[in-house]
Amino acid sequence: MMTKKASSSSNARPSKSKNPKFLWTRKDLVGLDELSSEEIVHVLDTAVSFQEVSTRSIKKIPALRGKVVALLFFEDSTRTRMSFELAASRLSADTVFLSGKGSSTSKGETTLDTVRNVEAMGVDVFVIRHSQSGAPHQLVDKVNVPIVNAGDGPHEHPTQALLDIFTIRQKLGTLEGVRVAIVGDIAHSRVARSNIIGLRKLGAEVVVVGPPTLVPATITAMGCEISHSLDDILGEVDVINMLRIQFERFSSNLFPSLREYSSLFGMNADRLSKCRKDVLIMHPGPINRGVELTSEVADGPNSCILQQVTNGLAVRMAVLYLVSQSRH
Amino acid sequence: MMTKKASSSSNARPSKSKNPKFLWTRKDLVGLDELSSEEIVHVLDTAVSFQEVSTRSIKKIPALRGKVVALLFFEDSTRTRMSFELAASRLSADTVFLSGKGSSTSKGETTLDTVRNVEAMGVDVFVIRHSQSGAPHQLVDKVNVPIVNAGDGPHEHPTQALLDIFTIRQKLGTLEGVRVAIVGDIAHSRVARSNIIGLRKLGAEVVVVGPPTLVPATITAMGCEISHSLDDILGEVDVINMLRIQFERFSSNLFPSLREYSSLFGMNADRLSKCRKDVLIMHPGPINRGVELTSEVADGPNSCILQQVTNGLAVRMAVLYLVSQSRH
Amino acid sequence: MMTKKASSSSNARPSKSKNPKFLWTRKDLVGLDELSSEEIVHVLDTAVSFQEVSTRSIKKIPALRGKVVALLFFEDSTRTRMSFELAASRLSADTVFLSGKGSSTSKGETTLDTVRNVEAMGVDVFVIRHSQSGAPHQLVDKVNVPIVNAGDGPHEHPTQALLDIFTIRQKLGTLEGVRVAIVGDIAHSRVARSNIIGLRKLGAEVVVVGPPTLVPATITAMGCEISHSLDDILGEVDVINMLRIQFERFSSNLFPSLREYSSLFGMNADRLSKCRKDVLIMHPGPINRGVELTSEVADGPNSCILQQVTNGLAVRMAVLYLVSQSRH
Repeated sequence: MMTKKASSSSNARPSKSKNPKFLWTRKDLVGLDELSSEEIVHVLDTAVSFQEVSTRSIKKIPALRGKVVALLFFEDSTRTRMSFELAASRLSADTVFLSGKGSSTSKGETTLDTVRNVEAMGVDVFVIRHSQSGAPHQLVDKVNVPIVNAGDGPHEHPTQALLDIFTIRQKLGTLEGVRVAIVGDIAHSRVARSNIIGLRKLGAEVVVVGPPTLVPATITAMGCEISHSLDDILGEVDVINMLRIQFERFSSNLFPSLREYSSLFGMNADRLSKCRKDVLIMHPGPINRGVELTSEVADGPNSCILQQVTNGLAVRMAVLYLVSQSRH
Repeated sequence: MMTKKASSSSNARPSKSKNPKFLWTRKDLVGLDELSSEEIVHVLDTAVSFQEVSTRSIKKIPALRGKVVALLFFEDSTRTRMSFELAASRLSADTVFLSGKGSSTSKGETTLDTVRNVEAMGVDVFVIRHSQSGAPHQLVDKVNVPIVNAGDGPHEHPTQALLDIFTIRQKLGTLEGVRVAIVGDIAHSRVARSNIIGLRKLGAEVVVVGPPTLVPATITAMGCEISHSLDDILGEVDVINMLRIQFERFSSNLFPSLREYSSLFGMNADRLSKCRKDVLIMHPGPINRGVELTSEVADGPNSCILQQVTNGLAVRMAVLYLVSQSRH
Repeated sequence: MMTKKASSSSNARPSKSKNPKFLWTRKDLVGLDELSSEEIVHVLDTAVSFQEVSTRSIKKIPALRGKVVALLFFEDSTRTRMSFELAASRLSADTVFLSGKGSSTSKGETTLDTVRNVEAMGVDVFVIRHSQSGAPHQLVDKVNVPIVNAGDGPHEHPTQALLDIFTIRQKLGTLEGVRVAIVGDIAHSRVARSNIIGLRKLGAEVVVVGPPTLVPATITAMGCEISHSLDDILGEVDVINMLRIQFERFSSNLFPSLREYSSLFGMNADRLSKCRKDVLIMHPGPINRGVELTSEVADGPNSCILQQVTNGLAVRMAVLYLVSQSRH
C-alpha cells in the first residue's frame, strides 16, 4: 500500500542534456544534497566521456598525471576503495592509502589532525570514508584540498547514488518520470538517502519499500512515497534497487528473521514475473544471494548489478577530475 | 630405500629449445597439469628474455602499460604477492590488491561474486591465491579475464614450480634426465605437486622423500619414486628441493617432534658432503633455519634459494605477459 | 634549573652553505651518528632543491624512474610510511610495501632472510622501520641495496631529525648558536636522540627537559644540558620541540598522571607568552591535543608542526635520491 504521496514535484527538475557552457566550481563532493540538478547532470555527462577510456587497450589518460589522490578510509570498504583507486589510476594519478586500523587516529589523534597532516604532505584530492555522519562536511572548510565523500555513516554516499543514477539514465535514456523503488533498510542506509535526493532532483519518482521498523515515516519529507509491501508496487516501477541487508539489524530486533525478511522483501523469479518486462534490478553490492535476491534474479537479464560496478569507475573518474580541476 | 620406480617415462618429454613458431593461446595459468611440455618450455624461454630487464638501470618495459593486474589474495602471502606486484610493475602494469581479511568475502559474498565485481571494474589479469583447492579452476569459465593461480590449497602452485624448474634449467642446462629429490610434507604441498608434474613433463626424474605419514603411496601415480630415507638418496640426485615445514602438522600428530624431523630429513653439512659436488639445494621459502636446513647449507655455495626468488620475477613477468597477450 | 652544561662545543661545527664539490658516497642512512656535519648539510641542501618539486602542478621528477623503493615496516607507522611512499612517488620510483603483521617474519623467518629475499626480487632501496634498536645497522653489511632507517626502537630516527633540523634552518637561517629545547620522554625517544646528535653537529645548543624518570643523567654525554623544569627555560630558547607522549609509560609508573605531566611539561598560551616572540613550536606528531600542547599553541602562529610534515617530503626525497645515486 502507498502510505503517502510525494507532496509535489517542486524540487524535481528534468535531467538536462549536455551543456557545454556549464562550469563546475565546487571544490568538494560531500553529498548530493547541495548539488543542483545541473551539477548532477554535469557529473553524469562527464562520466559518459570517461566511459570510453575503459574500453581502450591502454586504459589511461594523463588528466591527473603527477597528482596524488589520498584514500582515507577511516571505515573499511574494499570495494569502494578499489573503485576509487582504479579511477584515480586511469586518470594517471598516484594514490596513497590510509586505513582506519593502525592509523594515527587509533593513537588518539583527531580526524582533522590526521587529514591536515596528509594535506601537508602535498596531496591533491581526498577521498574520505568515515563511520560518522557529517565527518567529511566538517572537514571541508578546514582543508584546502578537495574532499570526495566515499560514504559517511548512515548519511550520504554520493558517488554510489551517482553511479546508480548514471546506470538508470544509460538504460532508460532519462530520469524524468522514471519510477524507482528502493527496498530494504531505508532508515540506516546512506545509499538510500543519496539516491532519493539525486533521483528527485532529476525528476524521478521514488517509492521506498520495507517494514515499518526500517522505514521512518519522516522519509516522505524527502519527496518520496512509502510502501510496506514489495508485492504491491512490483507492477508500477521501472527500477528496483535492493539495498544490502546489514545482518546486525536482525540481532537488534528490528526484524524477526532473515527468512521472513527474504520472503517479504526479497526479489525472486515469481516476483520478477509480476514486474514490467524491462524493469531494472539494481543492488549496491556486495549481494547476499538468497536474501535480497535469488541467484536467478541477480544473474538474470534484468539485473544491471555488474554494470553498476563498471559505471562506478567512470562516475568516480568524473568526480575526481571535476573537483581537482575546480578553481578553489 | 626406494619403494617404487616410476612406471615408465611415457609422459616425460625432452625440454625443447626456443621455438619461434610456438604460439601461446591459453587464457589462464591455473596449473601445470594442463600445460604441454611445449607450453612449459615456452614460459621458461619467455622468462629468459625478461630476465635481462631486471639487470637494467630502469627496470621497466612498457609491455602491459595501461593494464591492471588485480591481486586477489583470499589467503595471505606477503612474498608471493610482492613477487607478482613487482613483476607487474616491471611490465608497467598497475596493480590493485584485495586481501581475504576485511574483504567482501568476509561480508558473506561468494568468491565468484567478488571476482566478477573486480572484473566489472575493468581489470586485465587476475592473480588469485585461495585456501581451497580448485578455486581458480572453478572461476576460469565464469570470467573473461585471464586467471593466474598463485596457489590453491594443497593443489597447485604453478608459478613456484615454474621458477624452480627455470632455476634448474639455468644451472644444469636441461631438465632431461636430471634427478630431483623433493623432501618434506609431500602430502599437503602444492609446491611438491606442481613440481612433480612439471619436472616429469620435461623429462626429469623425481624422488619424493619424507616419513610415511607425509608421503602418500599413491603419489607414484604421478610418475615419481618414493624414499623414506633422505640419507639413502643423497648421492644419486642432482637437485634437492626442501619443502617448508608447516608447524601445524606436528601438533596434529603427523610427526613426533621438530627435532626428530630435522635429524632425519634436514639438510646439514654432513649430509651435503655425501651429495654430488654440484648438487643444487633449493627451498621455496620462507626457510626455517635449523629445521629444513642448517645455515651452513642455506647460505653455502650449493644453495640457489635466493636465485629462485630472483628468477621468480622473470617467470611471473613471463606468465603475466603471455596470458594477457593471448587472444581469448 | 640547569643541571649540567654541555662540556664544550668540540663536536659542534657550523652549518655550511651549499658546496657544489661535495660528493655523497654513503650507501646507507641508518643514523645521524655516523654522518659528518658536511653530509648533514648536503642532505638539507639537496632537500631545498627538491622542495620546489612539491609546488609544481605535476609533482614528479624522473630521478628514480624504474627504481623500486621497498618499504619494510616491521613496526607499524602510517604517517612515516605515507611520507616515504609519497617521496618515492615524487621521484617516479615504484614502491612495494611489507608490514610486520602477516609477513614472513611472523612465520618464523629471520629479519635478515626477509630482507635478503626482497633484495633478491631486485629492489633498489630499502626503507626499514623496526622495533629493535640497531636492526637496520645489522643489515647494512649483509645486503647490497641501500638502507634508510625509518626508526629503530628507541635508537635513531634520522629522517625525522633531518626534517626537524631542516625546518629550523628554513625558519631561522642557521643552526649555529640556535638554542633548542626538547621536551618529554627523552629516555625512550629515538626522535630526541637523533635530534640531539644532528643539532650538536651543526652547532646548535640543546637542552632536554622532562621529569628525572624520563631524562637519564647520562644524556649529557651527548653534549646537551638537562632541565627538569620547562618553565625555567622558556625565555632562553629559540625552538621548543615537544615529544609525543607514549601513554604506556604512565601505566609503567614512570609518571604519576597525564594531568600532572601536562601541567608541568605541556605547552599552553600562558607558557608561550613567556617565550621569545618568534619561538618555534615543533612536534613530530601525531599530537595529543591538551597533553603535550593545547590547541591554541598547536594551531597558533609559532607552531610549525604542519611545515615539518611538508618538509619531511623534501628531506625524504633527498635521502632516497642520495643513497640510490651513491656508487657502492
